[in-house]
Amino acid sequence: MVIKRYIMTPGPTPIPSFVNTSMQSLIHHRTDEFRDVIYSCRKMLKEYFQTKNEVAIFTSSGTGAMEASISNTMCAGDKIVTVEGGKFGERWGKIAKSFGIKNIPLKVEYGDYARPEDIKRIIDSEKNIKGVYIQASETSTGTFHPVDEIGIMLKEDYSDILYVVDGITAVGVMDVKPDEWGIDVLISGSQKALMLPPGLSFISVSNKARDFMKRSKLPHYYFDIEGELSKKDTLFTPAITLFLGLKRSLEYILYEEGLRNTIRRHGLLAHAVRESVKAMGLKLLSKRPADSLTAVISPENINSSNIVKIMKDECGVQISNGQGDLKGKIFRISHMGYVDKPDIIMAIGALEIALKKSGYHFSLGQGTQRLLEIFSDG
Amino acid sequence: MVIKRYIMTPGPTPIPSFVNTSMQSLIHHRTDEFRDVIYSCRKMLKEYFQTKNEVAIFTSSGTGAMEASISNTMCAGDKIVTVEGGKFGERWGKIAKSFGIKNIPLKVEYGDYARPEDIKRIIDSEKNIKGVYIQASETSTGTFHPVDEIGIMLKEDYSDILYVVDGITAVGVMDVKPDEWGIDVLISGSQKALMLPPGLSFISVSNKARDFMKRSKLPHYYFDIEGELSKKDTLFTPAITLFLGLKRSLEYILYEEGLRNTIRRHGLLAHAVRESVKAMGLKLLSKRPADSLTAVISPENINSSNIVKIMKDECGVQISNGQGDLKGKIFRISHMGYVDKPDIIMAIGALEIALKKSGYHFSLGQGTQRLLEIFSDG
Repeated sequence: MVIKRYIMTPGPTPIPSFVNTSMQSLIHHRTDEFRDVIYSCRKMLKEYFQTKNEVAIFTSSGTGAMEASISNTMCAGDKIVTVEGGKFGERWGKIAKSFGIKNIPLKVEYGDYARPEDIKRIIDSEKNIKGVYIQASETSTGTFHPVDEIGIMLKEDYSDILYVVDGITAVGVMDVKPDEWGIDVLISGSQKALMLPPGLSFISVSNKARDFMKRSKLPHYYFDIEGELSKKDTLFTPAITLFLGLKRSLEYILYEEGLRNTIRRHGLLAHAVRESVKAMGLKLLSKRPADSLTAVISPENINSSNIVKIMKDECGVQISNGQGDLKGKIFRISHMGYVDKPDIIMAIGALEIALKKSGYHFSLGQGTQRLLEIFSDG
Repeated sequence: MVIKRYIMTPGPTPIPSFVNTSMQSLIHHRTDEFRDVIYSCRKMLKEYFQTKNEVAIFTSSGTGAMEASISNTMCAGDKIVTVEGGKFGERWGKIAKSFGIKNIPLKVEYGDYARPEDIKRIIDSEKNIKGVYIQASETSTGTFHPVDEIGIMLKEDYSDILYVVDGITAVGVMDVKPDEWGIDVLISGSQKALMLPPGLSFISVSNKARDFMKRSKLPHYYFDIEGELSKKDTLFTPAITLFLGLKRSLEYILYEEGLRNTIRRHGLLAHAVRESVKAMGLKLLSKRPADSLTAVISPENINSSNIVKIMKDECGVQISNGQGDLKGKIFRISHMGYVDKPDIIMAIGALEIALKKSGYHFSLGQGTQRLLEIFSDG
């Protein structure tokens, strides 16, 4: 049997052939031609981030930008709140510790979301909280934290606290409005909604964040946000081919599909996936699901590793297992980036096959039927 | 006129079509299939680095690995010697300062090379030098420092000092033997002899370096050498497509061309370029030229920017200007990576045209003639 490959993981995501093609040639990075690429990328990234703040680009995974959001803004001994409702939230705590920052974690049950009042309570009981660090979409649980409500609460009551949002699987998927919501630092990465291979990370900084950067004294050299923003060049040799791809993918999203349509498409596909898995009697992990991926609780007595494996072996469809403690208990289907209705039909079909083969009792076709109803509607 | 493009810069270097092809598909990074890629790359990198030490891979420019060589091994207040004979040597000092490390620079005139006795003198006059940081090939001046002699001197007299060599434009070009020469930390990058786009850096660490890493307490999270070596996966999402390219380019160098032939080829091409520019009456900047690139002093009253520009505009051949204080005074032709005799013939021809058009007095064809003699020989 021919087994083609379909990537339906929450990063990397499928790369359009026109983006692949744009990465085929090399331009030397210290030329006006490449400076134009950097200029266009930074300009379009602002539009993509829906912000008037500048956006710096690093050659690194998203974690590099997460590190920069601490190492460029804080001082040793500073105290921050880290919202920890999954693997990526917990990463804030690890980075903070590495840099001698004291983090007060708000532990959120996996699948649950952070409430503004819980953050408020920590800020009021602790003294001198300097920053709040959170994910917009926690990729390990598929949860969309209410970064709007939290931002507005912080803006109103604690305007001297830095508000840092990891939007790696949220920007370009859901409406994230840094300027309205008072997000001082917003982060994203290349291998998600931007439809690129991994290797680039992005970080926007408000004027308030830039004031924090002035007083910060933590050691950093490679991840230097203000340094990157101060020049028309990158500070160090950039991942040239990925920059070329970035320009092409941003042009596509902003001027061909249109960001509003991109966000609407993600909303529709996510809704369809959620409804179809529910139609098969399955439960979502998240109480407030993100539109980037859907985390589904594996049926009782069925290890999710099995479902992931069958989908890949039988149909070439690669989805993701749970991470850490959630491994074997959930599976995660991504509908982020360059994904269309047929991709989802194929993925849900493959999921049905895998569920059937795993011994799950349900009426085969139920999920797909629900999906097709939604897609036929309107 | 058709103007094709020829990249003859000391990074990025030309990418073979078979390497480009290998980067066209995405494999999810948390799969056994990709773990095999990581395993092969690390294994082949050891062979490519000519070392029995482990080699970690970062998604970053080479500067990221340079930073790691300080942030992972030193403690705040430690003292190191930095050999500063050009822009990249000076970078050691900047990184050291960012991390609160005291660096004692050995200032070397641009184009000159470091003498072991000068390093010895600093070590003896300063107390408690913890590390010596140097480039094998200083890319800004095209100079090959005698990292062998320095290494052997350190090994014999100062075995408790960490010896760190940036081999970004040396590994895979010239014979660098970390284990024989006592190099504890050796660094390289993807966009040089490895014929890949920029975006990956590599760092090998000896057992002594790993002992230094145990006592080091400088803050770092993203650039965690021991963390990368402790797992079959990368710590964070890697630049997947570049890893796929890396596997292909290493296979080519090690098992198709053969590393000895690669090094011999670089030696021949470099020799031919040096001889042909000298045949045109030009002078080399370096007293000890590297085989990766040739830095040529621009003729009196001719700004090298002009030569670089004409070569690009007339022939599509991109070479590099000097950097910093050397801008306008030298030009740099790379013969590193996927470069063959015809590339060099074309580059020297284009250079002759540019020199003629810039008003330099010489007998046109002289450089090319010398080049062809060398290439016809044997």
